[in-house]
This record gives sequence, structure tokens and C-alpha cells, in this order.
Amino acid sequence: MDIRTQTTKSNLKKALLQCMKKQAFSEIKVKDIILASGISSRTFYQYYKDTHALLLAVEDDILAEFNKALLADRSAVNGIDHVLSQDELITVAENISRNSISFFLKNKTKLEILTSDNGDIRFFNKMVEYANKEFAVRMEKMNPNYKAILAQEQSLPPEIVLGIFDINIINVVLQLIKYNDELSPADMRRYIAGYLTRTPLQFLGLMQ
Amino acid sequence: MDIRTQTTKSNLKKALLQCMKKQAFSEIKVKDIILASGISSRTFYQYYKDTHALLLAVEDDILAEFNKALLADRSAVNGIDHVLSQDELITVAENISRNSISFFLKNKTKLEILTSDNGDIRFFNKMVEYANKEFAVRMEKMNPNYKAILAQEQSLPPEIVLGIFDINIINVVLQLIKYNDELSPADMRRYIAGYLTRTPLQFLGLMQ
Repeated sequence: MDIRTQTTKSNLKKALLQCMKKQAFSEIKVKDIILASGISSRTFYQYYKDTHALLLAVEDDILAEFNKALLADRSAVNGIDHVLSQDELITVAENISRNSISFFLKNKTKLEILTSDNGDIRFFNKMVEYANKEFAVRMEKMNPNYKAILAQEQSLPPEIVLGIFDINIINVVLQLIKYNDELSPADMRRYIAGYLTRTPLQFLGLMQ
Repeated sequence: MDIRTQTTKSNLKKALLQCMKKQAFSEIKVKDIILASGISSRTFYQYYKDTHALLLAVEDDILAEFNKALLADRSAVNGIDHVLSQDELITVAENISRNSISFFLKNKTKLEILTSDNGDIRFFNKMVEYANKEFAVRMEKMNPNYKAILAQEQSLPPEIVLGIFDINIINVVLQLIKYNDELSPADMRRYIAGYLTRTPLQFLGLMQ
């Protein structure tokens, strides 16, 4: 892809997100994006069939980056060959979110727009799907018998136990990045480790 | 509202959800709803300005019912005047989800459509908003000092601690209702109580 094409596409993507700050995606027309970007509608249609195709392109860029961050964080569970103590778990929990938190912070504005009322629920569902795949790999690395253990302990299919975990952890980070003025990435990692090793009722101060 | 109006509106709402099973809301036109419902476009516009207005009407019906269920469940925290033991907490956690789980099960298909890739993220955000309001009231009832305690313990604004809790618990129930063939409402309540009183890592079998 030559630089001019790349710049044009990137400007169209920026213009879509800008429009989504003000109105729901379903209400945005190609002409709104033309107006926001200053790019001609002829050029728009050269690259994208409609607003939907442009939205998917925006989302796919971010999802690819998310996937890369998840993969980079996977190394934190490499070489784990014993049942971890509480302290070791906290260290792993802190390390395993390093690249992911950087990804969330770097893409904060885009993530906020795409998960706002004007956003696209498909995008959130896709993030969960990527996390599901990655966390299944990590679980396998940490404990190759995890499916059997989960099925026995929870009387629910392992997929759903892991699914709940994945959705929840993504939401935790999406909430945390709202406070990036007050919290450093290290604070966020510490908070996530705390989240993973305390019960929801402890979190609310309702349980010792 | 006379019965005929009510029936027509209800049929239009059903038709929209039917269309959303097959395509994204942003791609649905009034003519698709006309086709699915057999109702004339003249009648459509008599009641709704556009597909967006119809979607909001569908969502508002469900949200009103959700709010009613949350209110009905509030009574489970009435009269709590001491710090609860683990066993008492589990009992409260089971009782406090009774009406909400009935609501989720009754509206399972609609909730699944509205939170699917074809759905509307505003709807999910609204559910969280309602839960936020309700859980703040419940926290206040259970511990009038909860804000000060949370701020001290978590070094995060109480709103975000509660916000994370609310989003997560809604997602837990949304996942659980997928298994309503295998799980009874009582199973689900037990599972939620387990979720509230165990750490995420215990849940995954990674922590004692």
C-alpha cells in the first residue's frame, strides 16, 4: 500500500471516529464522513463499499493490535511448572497485563468511542473472542488438565467459566483506563492483580 | 393505548427483533420491518419516526422490566444491620438475584439478540446504568459508610469499584442464561453466590 493510499484511509478512519463522537454509527452517512474528512466521495468509494466497511476496517486495525499485545503478554506464563503461591500469582497477574494495558491506554479514545452508546457491540464481542482464544492457550500452558478440573469444580462447561472470566477482565481494564490521569500503568497492573486474587464481595468491602 | 394500537406496536417490535436475528441493526431499513410484519409503511410512520425510534421502544420495554426486577430484589438486603458471616452472605447473594434471574430467563431471546453482533451497545450500557443506580442504593442500605471504606481500601473512586462489579455481574448472568437447558434458576442463583464469594483465580482453579 503506497503512502498516499495509507494516509487517505487513515484520514477516513479518523473521520468516522470523529463522527461517532457525536452520533450513533447507525445514523452516520457517507456524506458525514466526506464532510469531516474533506475527502471526495469518489475517493471514499474507491476504498470502502459503505460506512459499514469503513467501521470494520477501523475495528480490525485495533483488534490486530489487541491480539499482538495479548500474544506478547503470553510469555508471562511460560515456564510455570508448579502450583503457584499467592505471592507468585500476584507477580504473574501483574506481568501478564503489561502489554495489554499499554494497548488499552494507547487506544483509549478509540476504545471509548467504540464501546460508547454510539459504538458497535460487534467490536466488544470480537475483543472477548480474541481474549477467549488467548486465555484458553494460557490456561493450557498453566495447567493442561484445566478443562477437567473446571468441569468438576464448577459444574459448568469450562468454556463458560473462562468466558465469564474473559469478559470481566476486559471490562475491568476498560473501566480502569478511564482513570489514566490518576492511575499509572503500574497502579493498574496492581489493581488487576488485586481483582484476580480477591472475591467480588471483598472488593466491595462486604466480606473479610 | 387501545388494544389495536398495542398489538400493532408489539408486532412491529417483534418484526424488528426478527430482522436483527439476520442482519445488523444499522443495515435494517423500514421496508425490512414492513416486509417482516405485514404492516403498512403508513402505519409504521404513524407510531415511529424511523427504525431507531422503534429500537429504542423495544429497549425501553425491556429496561423497564429489568428495573422492576432489580427493585423487587432489593428487599433481600432490607433489615441487614450487622456484618454478615460467609454463610449469611451466600444466602443473601442467592436471594438477591431471584427476580433478576427470572427477568433474564424470560427475556433470554431478546437479550441475546440485543447483545449480539447485530445488536445495540447502547442497550447494554443502559442495563449497566440501571444496575449502577440500584447497587448504589443496596450498598447504602448494607453499609452507609461504604463510599469511605471503598475509597480507603481500593484507592479508586467508589463509583468505579461499584461500576466494575455491576458490569461483571450482568455479564455473568448473560452468560449463565445461555445454559438454561442445563441449569435451573436455583442452580444459577447458587452459581452467582459462588461467583461473589470466590476470587476469579479460584474460579479458574488457579488458586486454593
